[in-house]
Amino acid sequence: MQPRITSPAFFIGRGEGDGLISFGSGQPDLPPPPSTYKVLEHFREFKYGLVQGEEKLRAALAKEYPFAVPEDFVITNGASEAIDLALRAIAKDAPGSKFLLPRPYYYSYPHNVSLTWMIPAYTDLVDGKIDIESFKREAASCRAVLINSPSNPTGTVQEVETLKQIEEFCEEKGIYIVSDEVYKDMIYVRSNYLLHGKKVITVNSFSKTYAMCGLRVGYIYSKNREIIESVVEMKSHTSMNTSLVGQAMALAAMEEKSSYVESHAAIWRERRDLMYTGMKKLGLDLWEPEGAFYVLPKFKNPERAMHDLYYNYKIITYNGEWFGAPDRLRFSYALDVAKIEEGLKRVGEFLKKEYLTY
Amino acid sequence: MQPRITSPAFFIGRGEGDGLISFGSGQPDLPPPPSTYKVLEHFREFKYGLVQGEEKLRAALAKEYPFAVPEDFVITNGASEAIDLALRAIAKDAPGSKFLLPRPYYYSYPHNVSLTWMIPAYTDLVDGKIDIESFKREAASCRAVLINSPSNPTGTVQEVETLKQIEEFCEEKGIYIVSDEVYKDMIYVRSNYLLHGKKVITVNSFSKTYAMCGLRVGYIYSKNREIIESVVEMKSHTSMNTSLVGQAMALAAMEEKSSYVESHAAIWRERRDLMYTGMKKLGLDLWEPEGAFYVLPKFKNPERAMHDLYYNYKIITYNGEWFGAPDRLRFSYALDVAKIEEGLKRVGEFLKKEYLTY
Repeated sequence: MQPRITSPAFFIGRGEGDGLISFGSGQPDLPPPPSTYKVLEHFREFKYGLVQGEEKLRAALAKEYPFAVPEDFVITNGASEAIDLALRAIAKDAPGSKFLLPRPYYYSYPHNVSLTWMIPAYTDLVDGKIDIESFKREAASCRAVLINSPSNPTGTVQEVETLKQIEEFCEEKGIYIVSDEVYKDMIYVRSNYLLHGKKVITVNSFSKTYAMCGLRVGYIYSKNREIIESVVEMKSHTSMNTSLVGQAMALAAMEEKSSYVESHAAIWRERRDLMYTGMKKLGLDLWEPEGAFYVLPKFKNPERAMHDLYYNYKIITYNGEWFGAPDRLRFSYALDVAKIEEGLKRVGEFLKKEYLTY
Repeated sequence: MQPRITSPAFFIGRGEGDGLISFGSGQPDLPPPPSTYKVLEHFREFKYGLVQGEEKLRAALAKEYPFAVPEDFVITNGASEAIDLALRAIAKDAPGSKFLLPRPYYYSYPHNVSLTWMIPAYTDLVDGKIDIESFKREAASCRAVLINSPSNPTGTVQEVETLKQIEEFCEEKGIYIVSDEVYKDMIYVRSNYLLHGKKVITVNSFSKTYAMCGLRVGYIYSKNREIIESVVEMKSHTSMNTSLVGQAMALAAMEEKSSYVESHAAIWRERRDLMYTGMKKLGLDLWEPEGAFYVLPKFKNPERAMHDLYYNYKIITYNGEWFGAPDRLRFSYALDVAKIEEGLKRVGEFLKKEYLTY
């Protein structure tokens, strides 16, 4: 009997072998800048570092953010720990608070909220975009909101006008904004809009920009000194400094940022175009990706489709239900063009054969 | 005005320069085995790894524990994350539970308990040893207990007979044991006694055994599959895999374990003897270290002594109060012999001069 697939964990370690095409995991397939590995030749550190993160790395990051200083940053074990610590800081004096998530959401978010003893609330995106009236209605009773633009899994970015209204509303009501901007260097339609405000906590990572997912270096950026101090204090008990060798690699990667990001932007755009037009040709209903590397097409019975695609066509996709989108499937297109074409071909066959009987 | 010192964080970054002698931070001063850096030459990974940790590393660890299999381990960002995740797993369905800590304790423990919405309870050590009657009385109303043998900050190990009684009592009452054994390879009086039981969660680390504090690789070992699964599930949301480069270094370090640990055992023993006899000669009241690299001598007004030693004699020590020992100062002797001798000389001067006026 074929095992039932109930979470993304099922697919971990099921990679490109055996003719599989994986539209599953959301991580770049191309390696980081060469400087990332070159720094290892001379790496000889072993003692504890600053819990807040190495000063050189925070200074380099501060140059990327207007008006930022190194003290505004905490280096974390990827964006995951950044989100966990930000939420723990927010929940510290107010367990049981409501925390607003736009839906569809990155599949960890509801868990992150529950793990910090807060309660998730939701506002449904309309065609991948925040409906500001619904947002305000729900946010009014929340201690914090999460913004993820560009979004995993929708591939959309939020309108700058909407983001400004959110800033204003939250500032006025004293609501924390956790802004997960890990795809900020992968936007096809405009430059990134950095959310501002006294209670804004920006989460970012080296994972997507520099293809360093497995090396786990992320960070928190915030002008809210109280949050920064609370995060550092907690981290001194829950993980201490982020791996010094990871931080050295991250700093080295930044040296090649402009050439690396620029050359990869063309690659991502080509894949995006291929994926979007290919799926449209197959007759699928989906949003054109504006950032990141995901599409979220509609499917009848997506759970069955995910199983059939995997077991009968060797195609990995993720059930939209895991992301709060029960009528869709998520496809990551972090794959070379040849694989995307082969993958689309198989999806086409599935649509012409099995899917018709659904 | 000289700033008041309120936590170990004050001393971070205040190292060996300016004639300072630091008995503060608890970390080895000698570098890890050479293999640890050699593996970096060919390291080229960048994609996500298994959240539970690399299979090769878990397989190597399994060989160190009798009857262990790789599935019993989760690789974490140091012992700190191991403790945080273990406590989160324990607290998950029972926030507000009591959690027993022998006192004096490692200074993060009460924070770890509070951060997971449990309530710390205490049993006072008698001359650095667990009083089994007090232990049982307090543990009876607790969901979990923490054992840290060898102990930071007392330098004592618990008697094997006591540990066996704790195992039996906790097994019978269904109480979780979190056994922090990070100093297991630094015991002067016997070999380590690994706590056993259905609800035992062993925490360990590469930080002390291999001098890899800043590289942040630790692990959980448990035969309790429910706890392991719960920890992996949480970690998939709160930090994902532990840094792959750190894990590669940890595995490389293990190749040299026996020669490295053996040669360092002699070094630690020499320092231990020097520190203990030196302090006795100065007339201080302290326990002879049985493991780890700490002494915890009694002082009148330790807070004032810590300030005077730092500002007038350039000696870093930690206030015992931070460890639940308000009548003592903690000294780490992870220093070369010449520095220990110079440090003891200065402590002697302090005792002969300022301390007399206390």
